[in-house]
Amino acid sequence: MSNQTWTPTEQSIAQHAIKAAYQREAKALIEEITKEADVIEDIHQVWKLHDYLSAKRHQMDGKYDDRYPGLMFVFADLLKEGWLRLDDLQGLEAEKLSKISALAKM
Amino acid sequence: MSNQTWTPTEQSIAQHAIKAAYQREAKALIEEITKEADVIEDIHQVWKLHDYLSAKRHQMDGKYDDRYPGLMFVFADLLKEGWLRLDDLQGLEAEKLSKISALAKM
Repeated sequence: MSNQTWTPTEQSIAQHAIKAAYQREAKALIEEITKEADVIEDIHQVWKLHDYLSAKRHQMDGKYDDRYPGLMFVFADLLKEGWLRLDDLQGLEAEKLSKISALAKM
Repeated sequence: MSNQTWTPTEQSIAQHAIKAAYQREAKALIEEITKEADVIEDIHQVWKLHDYLSAKRHQMDGKYDDRYPGLMFVFADLLKEGWLRLDDLQGLEAEKLSKISALAKM
């Protein structure tokens, strides 16, 4: 799968798709943080929020890798997590789409 | 100064004082976090909040060291930062109080 070629159109679709997924996850995180911060009453909850942000940042930094060799796996993971929709990938060749869908079900 | 002795009454005053200072700093941090989280609009602000919490946690973990050899310095720092008040230390012997005050002015 690492020899998969991406046409310029597909590259553009892929870049838009990964950006859209990132923005959705970022938006959800912002909503979550705002909500959680509103009900903080003691310092342990502050450190819990800090731990959560540490984990989330590490995870998001690693996950949105837009280099082509691993992109099918990145898309599959994002589909599974709900940040990416198959609609975002429309325009990719059918073989890529079916591979991504199959990986997402694993 | 490391040979300073603390009577049981002074030890009790010291423990209450350090706890009071910690609670004031914690309360201020909670208010700050709640306020900041309310105006977060993009993911960079989330990571900025995370960086701030990392620094603050590291700093607070190190600062509130209630072991007696260094306690005069701890109190001096907390006085300087405003989390501790001289009132909290009333009951300590005059020599300790004046040393702490002097250190806080350095």
